[in-house]
Amino acid sequence: MISVAYQGEPGAHSERAARAFFGKEAKLIACEHFQDAFRFASAGRSRYAIIPIENSVFGSVHQNYDLLLAHSLKIVGEVSLRIHHHLMALPGVPVRDIRFIISHPQALGQCDEFIRKMKRAKTVVYYDTAGAAKMIREEERRNAAAIASAQAATTYRLRILRRNIENNHHNYTRFLVLSKSSASLKRGGKTSLVFAARNIPGALFKSLAVFALRDVNMQKIESRPLQGKPWEYLFYLDILGSAAEEKVKQALHHLEEVSTFVRILGSYPVGRTIEG
Amino acid sequence: MISVAYQGEPGAHSERAARAFFGKEAKLIACEHFQDAFRFASAGRSRYAIIPIENSVFGSVHQNYDLLLAHSLKIVGEVSLRIHHHLMALPGVPVRDIRFIISHPQALGQCDEFIRKMKRAKTVVYYDTAGAAKMIREEERRNAAAIASAQAATTYRLRILRRNIENNHHNYTRFLVLSKSSASLKRGGKTSLVFAARNIPGALFKSLAVFALRDVNMQKIESRPLQGKPWEYLFYLDILGSAAEEKVKQALHHLEEVSTFVRILGSYPVGRTIEG
Repeated sequence: MISVAYQGEPGAHSERAARAFFGKEAKLIACEHFQDAFRFASAGRSRYAIIPIENSVFGSVHQNYDLLLAHSLKIVGEVSLRIHHHLMALPGVPVRDIRFIISHPQALGQCDEFIRKMKRAKTVVYYDTAGAAKMIREEERRNAAAIASAQAATTYRLRILRRNIENNHHNYTRFLVLSKSSASLKRGGKTSLVFAARNIPGALFKSLAVFALRDVNMQKIESRPLQGKPWEYLFYLDILGSAAEEKVKQALHHLEEVSTFVRILGSYPVGRTIEG
Repeated sequence: MISVAYQGEPGAHSERAARAFFGKEAKLIACEHFQDAFRFASAGRSRYAIIPIENSVFGSVHQNYDLLLAHSLKIVGEVSLRIHHHLMALPGVPVRDIRFIISHPQALGQCDEFIRKMKRAKTVVYYDTAGAAKMIREEERRNAAAIASAQAATTYRLRILRRNIENNHHNYTRFLVLSKSSASLKRGGKTSLVFAARNIPGALFKSLAVFALRDVNMQKIESRPLQGKPWEYLFYLDILGSAAEEKVKQALHHLEEVSTFVRILGSYPVGRTIEG
């Protein structure tokens, strides 16, 4: 059976992403921290891990970019999920009794316009959206509400007080599927990689030129600090095409020439987007 | 008198940055949220605001990039501060009694190797490093420690149990000084700007070419999601030189030609780094 480690409690968005990607049969393993999901897959205790990498409103999950570098897992797939956030509390608790709104910092950030109108409530950050819902149920908190998915409301028997409270309704999260062995994609799809530019003028420009000169399309660039070298950066890129294709291979060869470090994180098929 | 709004409690790193930049005489105004510091300066209730923008270990403070765009303040200066983190608790509390380690998520992230060794303690995220120290003092928490600056330990009369617990000792935070009117720098220094690339292949490469073709050095690039357009991005750049210089002016003119949106956030002198 396929086993997949994810971060969060049952009812978390990552669980929904795992179901969308792997179907009903897969065995899903809930982990407390992202790091644990990476470790599970790295140690072969699960065949895959699934992690959120970026949200279309809030930005990248930078911790997971750093963890991609710290582990040697390959990206073998991706899936994007439409995200709806709901305010939920124990049945019978009215909105006016809510003094604390509890959720993951990203979810709180994605709903901050709604939260600002709840003048009597303070926000409390929690490690996970579904975890906040679970805690309210377990501790019978009658003065608190969680921001989480409809699935979490069902799982923990909470009542949804306000639906779709996200600021921006074009709210999607992109998840990466990781595994110890690569997807061996011959053509098409996407390739993710990370590199360090030389510390010389125009270095990033020259690094991106290796793709532009060969009409390899870049989909995303993300910078992260290079540890131990203040104000130098690592760049994470997503490009279109497999690393097995000739022009991508040439571009990557050229990139090694103009940078101090290159690692291919994986070539994988372009993922589906799950609406609703 | 010069007035400066900053986020955090007295004893916060931002307060130290404000003192380093403005000296002893300035009137410093503590705000609970970054947003409040922006609002104070925007409304003219303080002449300046000072905000952290990036840390050399943990990365950018993305919320402040978003707030730079949401407000029309100009960047007029910068200063970098060496950051040391210490574990502190009420006097008489030994390390073995610590069950909770409380701090800002960035500080917890910067000390996670140390924290992992404190097996019996759970982390609790708090809005501010100095705020965590203050809370431990006010609530007389004898099972908790804060991670904060030496200044916070002094301010809230806590005892430092472990010094310099940051993972990486090359730990610097860069702060920006904001004001309603720009610094009117004729030559030299730095310019920060934000732009949206067209949604066409090679768009980012073409946007960076406007600088590379004129030997204008780029110091930093940061991408943030473009709201309402999933998987499109805004790019924040720091370049060397003032926007009043001819070649920078030409480059920015060229950038307008190849992008859909450009805003200059300010030209300002290159800042000092405060060690110790």
